[in-house]
Amino acid sequence: MSAGTTDTHAPQSAFLAACRRQSVPHRPIWIMRQAGRYLPEYRELRSKVDFETLTRTPELAAEVTLQPLRRFELDAAILFSDIMTPLQGMGVKLTFEPAPVVSEPIRTAAQIAALPPLEPARDVPFVLETIRQVRRGVPRAVPLIGFAGAPFTLLCYLVCGRPSKEFAPARTFLYAQPGDAERLLTHLADAMAAYLAAQAAAGAQALMLFESWAGLLGVREFARFALPAVRRTLAALRPLGVPLIYYLNQGSALMDTVAGLDVDVVGVDWRAPLSVVRRVLGPGKAVQGNLDPAALFAPPAELARAAAAVLAEAGSAPGHIFNLGHGIWPDTDPDAVARLVDFVHEHP
Amino acid sequence: MSAGTTDTHAPQSAFLAACRRQSVPHRPIWIMRQAGRYLPEYRELRSKVDFETLTRTPELAAEVTLQPLRRFELDAAILFSDIMTPLQGMGVKLTFEPAPVVSEPIRTAAQIAALPPLEPARDVPFVLETIRQVRRGVPRAVPLIGFAGAPFTLLCYLVCGRPSKEFAPARTFLYAQPGDAERLLTHLADAMAAYLAAQAAAGAQALMLFESWAGLLGVREFARFALPAVRRTLAALRPLGVPLIYYLNQGSALMDTVAGLDVDVVGVDWRAPLSVVRRVLGPGKAVQGNLDPAALFAPPAELARAAAAVLAEAGSAPGHIFNLGHGIWPDTDPDAVARLVDFVHEHP
Repeated sequence: MSAGTTDTHAPQSAFLAACRRQSVPHRPIWIMRQAGRYLPEYRELRSKVDFETLTRTPELAAEVTLQPLRRFELDAAILFSDIMTPLQGMGVKLTFEPAPVVSEPIRTAAQIAALPPLEPARDVPFVLETIRQVRRGVPRAVPLIGFAGAPFTLLCYLVCGRPSKEFAPARTFLYAQPGDAERLLTHLADAMAAYLAAQAAAGAQALMLFESWAGLLGVREFARFALPAVRRTLAALRPLGVPLIYYLNQGSALMDTVAGLDVDVVGVDWRAPLSVVRRVLGPGKAVQGNLDPAALFAPPAELARAAAAVLAEAGSAPGHIFNLGHGIWPDTDPDAVARLVDFVHEHP
Repeated sequence: MSAGTTDTHAPQSAFLAACRRQSVPHRPIWIMRQAGRYLPEYRELRSKVDFETLTRTPELAAEVTLQPLRRFELDAAILFSDIMTPLQGMGVKLTFEPAPVVSEPIRTAAQIAALPPLEPARDVPFVLETIRQVRRGVPRAVPLIGFAGAPFTLLCYLVCGRPSKEFAPARTFLYAQPGDAERLLTHLADAMAAYLAAQAAAGAQALMLFESWAGLLGVREFARFALPAVRRTLAALRPLGVPLIYYLNQGSALMDTVAGLDVDVVGVDWRAPLSVVRRVLGPGKAVQGNLDPAALFAPPAELARAAAAVLAEAGSAPGHIFNLGHGIWPDTDPDAVARLVDFVHEHP
């Protein structure tokens, strides 16, 4: 359940109100990966600096975070970073090609035992400084979302080394080495709790965990491995009083299981009808989503129909934050985003 | 609903009885991609012949189809072929690398209009001859499943050219060119109906449609595009009297929509709990699935627990065919498959 505390950093925003299931003057909207390659101003910056440097240089990361807010009337900013950045801070060697590639996959008990805890101020100071700079420069007092990868999703990258369609090594790791998997997940849960708490202390006004690979697991394995880990992270963050968001990709079969989590907002992909999600989660949680990123390639009238269908599925009860169901695609036309933001704001 | 006709080609088998929701002496099991790279005898053959030649040479395709039946007490055989083989027969240029790659993706109205119908006896005679040879050589009178790709899944390959995580071009095609998409789907639905009817005439005793990419679509887009096409194929096949199977990968959110299809068996991936699937589909459909392929990498006791969990979810009502929730992985130990088959047969 939401702690229901008042945010002391910013005037109440539609986004923060919706996180707490309060009524809003307009339906808030932000867009996963809103700071990114579909924006010409991002591509221009990226042509001069590699991705990793962008994430590690506060002036640049803050600039990229703010770019979409200058162009569109978005209701939230989200830190520009990568879910693997804190693991890099913990000494995991990786490169971005552009997807993260871990040089030495972590699969043994010894490797897991050797992972240090994360000390954010020491290991990822540039992330915290980015947050401070964004808070100083953000227009319209738009709230800033901090984020991290959920423990199981991070495990997938650590065990596999590089992303793949099946993430087979990560899935076989759960079956073949369940004890090692649980130890790694616990370690990651604590590290991400420390990471997100530091982000909140630096000024992040909501915290989001990305379970990008929830869809790899059956219900039984999700409940055994991914759920206890994310619950551990959330429990550590709850006393902070900022809204907590858990995004699951391809989690349609997991909603019953997720309903028991102490989280303010559940974000879902475009395959999960919001009416079903809200019914299963119950009135105690807000929802976030879930337009298909492909809909931004439709002619304007069809895009409006698809957005209206999301609003109709979400219903009129408080507690819906409009978003895509997954990250925006790099070849999206920014004008389509502008049309979408206007449409959502005009249809409360 | 099942047509309930009697199969005249083979003595009643546990597999065919379960397709028709009749009681069975033991729980039938077969395994998606049971003919394939995890078998040393397959790898030996493949070391001498490329994949495409294997699919186009009846003696070899029949041999590969039969290999797993000699090793394991499986309850069904499935034709060794590729879902793209009939499209190749229709003149679509493609290579297998090993995933199918279409040389000239099909995206324009003119390309769609130029696609010829499929005439199986002329375009893919080797598939029909493979079926006849398998029927002559099959041990224990095990029934043979013929198969095809479902129209939307074939569209994904045709529009994208090569498989990808997001299949972005296929999804934007639906939004940007819905009329072209519908015309292509109708053409593919008719071609696959002709293809599967010819397979049944050659001796296939059940017919399966693979909707491998169901999970790309929201409910609204699935209902608008994929569903009418697969309904069209199924309607053409219904008079044949053989059991019809529709497999959906990542279709947890689509079960309500699929419940209305006139199909005997719905196959599902490992993310969809079978108890939920059976409840939503109702008593008029059998189900097939759905062990996580990763479970075959567990120690024997844990594999048994995972298989028992699938049986418990499926329940004891007639109409369950045990299978994996997705194709078996190439690096699976064949001994684990043997243990799984024994376990399922010993736990009715």
